[in-house]
Amino acid sequence: MSDDGSIDRIVEKVLARLGRSGGEAPNLDGRSCASCAVPGQCASLCPETTARIVREGANRVSSAPGAGSVPKNLAPLIDHTILRADATRAEIETLVDEAKRFRFASVCVNPCWARLCRDALDGTGILVCTVVGFPLGANAPLTKAFETRRACFDGAEEIDMVINVGALKSREDAFVEKEIRGVVESAGAGVTVKVILETAYLDNDEKVRACRAALRARAAFVKTSTGFGPSGATVEDVRLMRETVGPRMGVKAAGGIRSRSDAEEMIRAGASRIGASASVAIVKEE
Amino acid sequence: MSDDGSIDRIVEKVLARLGRSGGEAPNLDGRSCASCAVPGQCASLCPETTARIVREGANRVSSAPGAGSVPKNLAPLIDHTILRADATRAEIETLVDEAKRFRFASVCVNPCWARLCRDALDGTGILVCTVVGFPLGANAPLTKAFETRRACFDGAEEIDMVINVGALKSREDAFVEKEIRGVVESAGAGVTVKVILETAYLDNDEKVRACRAALRARAAFVKTSTGFGPSGATVEDVRLMRETVGPRMGVKAAGGIRSRSDAEEMIRAGASRIGASASVAIVKEE
Repeated sequence: MSDDGSIDRIVEKVLARLGRSGGEAPNLDGRSCASCAVPGQCASLCPETTARIVREGANRVSSAPGAGSVPKNLAPLIDHTILRADATRAEIETLVDEAKRFRFASVCVNPCWARLCRDALDGTGILVCTVVGFPLGANAPLTKAFETRRACFDGAEEIDMVINVGALKSREDAFVEKEIRGVVESAGAGVTVKVILETAYLDNDEKVRACRAALRARAAFVKTSTGFGPSGATVEDVRLMRETVGPRMGVKAAGGIRSRSDAEEMIRAGASRIGASASVAIVKEE
Repeated sequence: MSDDGSIDRIVEKVLARLGRSGGEAPNLDGRSCASCAVPGQCASLCPETTARIVREGANRVSSAPGAGSVPKNLAPLIDHTILRADATRAEIETLVDEAKRFRFASVCVNPCWARLCRDALDGTGILVCTVVGFPLGANAPLTKAFETRRACFDGAEEIDMVINVGALKSREDAFVEKEIRGVVESAGAGVTVKVILETAYLDNDEKVRACRAALRARAAFVKTSTGFGPSGATVEDVRLMRETVGPRMGVKAAGGIRSRSDAEEMIRAGASRIGASASVAIVKEE
C-alpha cells in the first residue's frame, strides 16, 4: 500500500470515529458528537466537521437517544449486511457495489470475506464490519479473541461479537464481561466493538446484565440480535438497552428490519445504527 | 491426573478408535473394523476385541455402508447433542448424566463446554465432541485451526467442523480442502475430525465435491448438517455421501433425526453415526 493510501485510510478512520456514537473525541468544531443533544443538525452546528466528513465520503451521523427527528437519509446509519453461510464471492461483490452506490456506513460480512471487502472498499470511507463468535457465541473465549485479531489483520474496522448467552443465563456475568474485554483488547483502539446480546433468548434482567457487562468491558455498542435467533430487534429491547447503557454507548438494532418505517421506529427508540440485509430496499423507499 | 487415570484414558481412546469407521488399525483379533463386511457380528467374529470394549465401557460399533441389519442397541452410535446458544451449565450437566446412563458414544457440545464435559466424563469411555466454525463455517481458515487446537486442549476428542459453504459454491474447492486439512492437522492424530457439509445449501455436484475435499484432506467423517440450516439429514444425502467417500470414511447423519425409525433409516442408507438432540427419546423407544 502506498503512503498516500495509508494516510487516506487513517483520515477516514479518524473521521468515521468522530461520527460514531461510542466516540468521545471532540470533532473539528470542538464539540463531542457522542454527547450531542441535537442530532441531524451537524451542518449548521458543526459546519467544518460536516464539510470534511462529506468531502471524505465518510458521512456518518449518529442519532441521539430518544430523538424525535429521523435523519433525512438513512443510508449513513446502515450496515449493509450479508451473513448467510452460503453467500458466494459474487454476492459479496454485489454487496460492496451497493454499499458504494448508496453510501452505506459499512458492509457487514462473515470473517472469510473481510479481506475481499477491505480491498474493494479501500479509499471509499465505507467501513468493513465483521462478526466474531457468530451466531451462537458459545466458543472458547480465546477463540473469540483470536478471531478478532485475525479479522482486524484482514482489515475489519468494526467487530460484531456475540456474548456467551449460556454463561449469562447461568449467571456467570464476570465470565461474560471478561470475554467481551478480551475481544475489545484484541481489537485495539482503532476498531469499534459491538456486543450482540441475542435478546430473543433473554429476559429483561438478563438484557440489563448483558448491557452492563458490555459497558464495563468498554465496548462501543450493544446490539440486539444476530438475525439467526428466534426473533430480531424489537422497539422495547432497543429502548431498554438505551436506558441501560446511557447516551455514551451506541445501540444497534438488527434482525427483521425490512422497511424504512421499521428503521425509523428503531431510531426513535434510541438506536444509533441499523443492521439490515434489506438495506437497499429501505433506502430506495425514500 | 494420576498415572492410572492417564493409562485408562489412553486405553479408552485406543479402544474407541478401533471401533470407529475412519480407523485403519487392526483390532485385537487382527481384523480391521473399518473394512469389516459383517457389522454387528463383533461378538462372534472378534470376541477378544468385543470383550475388552465392553469391559472398558467403550462399546461402539460401526455400521458398514449399505448393511441391511441395524444394531440392536443404537446408543453406542449416538452423539448426544446440545448446541443451542442458550444452553446453560445445568443443561450441559444433565446431558452428561444422560450420556453416562444410556452409554452414548459421545456428548456433542459447543466449545465453551468442552472442558466441563471432559472433566465430568473422565474414565467413562464416553467421548467429548465439539464443533468448529459452527454453524456458518464462514470464519477465516486460521480461526478454525485455532478453535480446533483450543478444543483439543480443553479435552475434545472429536471435532465436527463446518466447511466454507460460500467458497464451495464459488467453486473454490482447493480452498475448501486446504481449510479442512488445517483443522485435521491442528487436531492431530488422536482426534476424529468430522466435516459438516450443510447439505441443505448444496446441489448434488457440490455435495460430491465437498466429500472429495474432505477425503483428500484426510478427515475421518463427512456429516450432513449442523441442525441450524434450513433442513437436516436426508436418506438420499447419506446414500450419496456414502457412495462418494466409500467404505473407509465415516458418514454421520445429523439434523432432524427424532425417532428410532429415522435413525435406523439413516444407518441403512450408510450412516455410521447419528447426531441427535433427541437421543434419549430414541433410545427409550427400544
